[in-house]
Amino acid sequence: MARYKVILAYDGSEFAGSQRQANKRTVQGELEKALHKLQWIGKSVLMAGRTDTGVHAAGQVAAFDFEWSHSNEQLLKALNATLPLDLAIRRLHQVAADFHPRFDATSREYRYRLFCEPIRDPLREKIAWRVWPSIDERILQQVPAIFIGTHDFSLFGSPTTPKGTTVRTMTKAEWRKMPDGEWQFEVQADAFLYRMVRRLVFVQVSLAQGKCSREEVQKALLKQSKLPAGLAPAPGLTLVGVSYGSQDE
Amino acid sequence: MARYKVILAYDGSEFAGSQRQANKRTVQGELEKALHKLQWIGKSVLMAGRTDTGVHAAGQVAAFDFEWSHSNEQLLKALNATLPLDLAIRRLHQVAADFHPRFDATSREYRYRLFCEPIRDPLREKIAWRVWPSIDERILQQVPAIFIGTHDFSLFGSPTTPKGTTVRTMTKAEWRKMPDGEWQFEVQADAFLYRMVRRLVFVQVSLAQGKCSREEVQKALLKQSKLPAGLAPAPGLTLVGVSYGSQDE
Repeated sequence: MARYKVILAYDGSEFAGSQRQANKRTVQGELEKALHKLQWIGKSVLMAGRTDTGVHAAGQVAAFDFEWSHSNEQLLKALNATLPLDLAIRRLHQVAADFHPRFDATSREYRYRLFCEPIRDPLREKIAWRVWPSIDERILQQVPAIFIGTHDFSLFGSPTTPKGTTVRTMTKAEWRKMPDGEWQFEVQADAFLYRMVRRLVFVQVSLAQGKCSREEVQKALLKQSKLPAGLAPAPGLTLVGVSYGSQDE
Repeated sequence: MARYKVILAYDGSEFAGSQRQANKRTVQGELEKALHKLQWIGKSVLMAGRTDTGVHAAGQVAAFDFEWSHSNEQLLKALNATLPLDLAIRRLHQVAADFHPRFDATSREYRYRLFCEPIRDPLREKIAWRVWPSIDERILQQVPAIFIGTHDFSLFGSPTTPKGTTVRTMTKAEWRKMPDGEWQFEVQADAFLYRMVRRLVFVQVSLAQGKCSREEVQKALLKQSKLPAGLAPAPGLTLVGVSYGSQDE
């Protein structure tokens, strides 16, 4: 018996999120189904974090114990041949028996994509938020600095455990302009509150559209102001990766 | 009554192609349905060209006659509010009463995306072909020159009308490497045979994988050789645009 860590990529469009739910098609559910087809006798895989309905992943992490007598490469191939087309294992390797993808994680990184256009654009909207009215690009690029560091993000999401802390440490937050006019928000923190990235994006876009002020956003980190209510749509969001400090590959 | 020309964009994943078919969800069918909801009494819209199941478009063209008493902008908005999320009108304007999106077209442009990876990657595979074994990039970039000019492409597709000509004039054909390691094939011709772009891509990839020779591809344009059978998958293909010479906007 060995513990395996897998890096998962998925198109979130047809999943009711990552965590197993009765009678719903989820990432965890499909992974467990594929393992069972390979005679896995476990009950539950461990997941690094929860992604919502419609959110994508390039580097979600899961772990499971498995008695497998062939090579890692053969296990990866067998699982990828069994998993549905919108879910794949990108990497697989053995880890220490006590490795836990959620509790051992030292940071998570997300990417959010958007573009500004007055008219619907179906193909791009599969993976990016179409924003209109347009944004002040200079303002957008200046906002993320506000979030860097350790803050109480309670106005930007809900705790992931009941009455859990809402303090998080953000180590990276920046908007990058892509060649095709797309904007990508790249954000890394020790951990994220529930729906925090989509909320951060929504607030920043509101600010860059002139619907709230930089001061209000700053004060929100001190819980001294109200912010426009709303969430950036799920399809723009991708979980890029989860880091484990020295345990990284 | 006026004739309107519309530029359509769609995510082809959930369409059984562009042309209307009984009991199937098609681009033409959805556009006609949306028009009927606006009291259009026409029977059929005119389409510039046919795209297969799963093929996307950024610039498909359609035209229809319509008695509309408000502005073009209002018609565009009303249609986009009615069309399903995976289909949108990007531009709309009035044209001459005899404008025909197919017969008046002077050229069409397509883009095909691929990337080379040994392991499945669900999110990227929605819009690009995952190719493995890898390709010789230098060879890939040199192939398209073979196709430029007027040739009988009968080994690269089927005529679009029974016993129609298989001679086409290709004015642009090149592979571009994108920052994320993706390859884009950009190709323009007066018109394309049925499935011609996907066939061209498949043959070029076969060549860049060492499965056939440059001489065989060149001889195929003289119908003097056989080529590897196969088609590049539909999701990698996008109809970028249709040109109308002086009638362009």
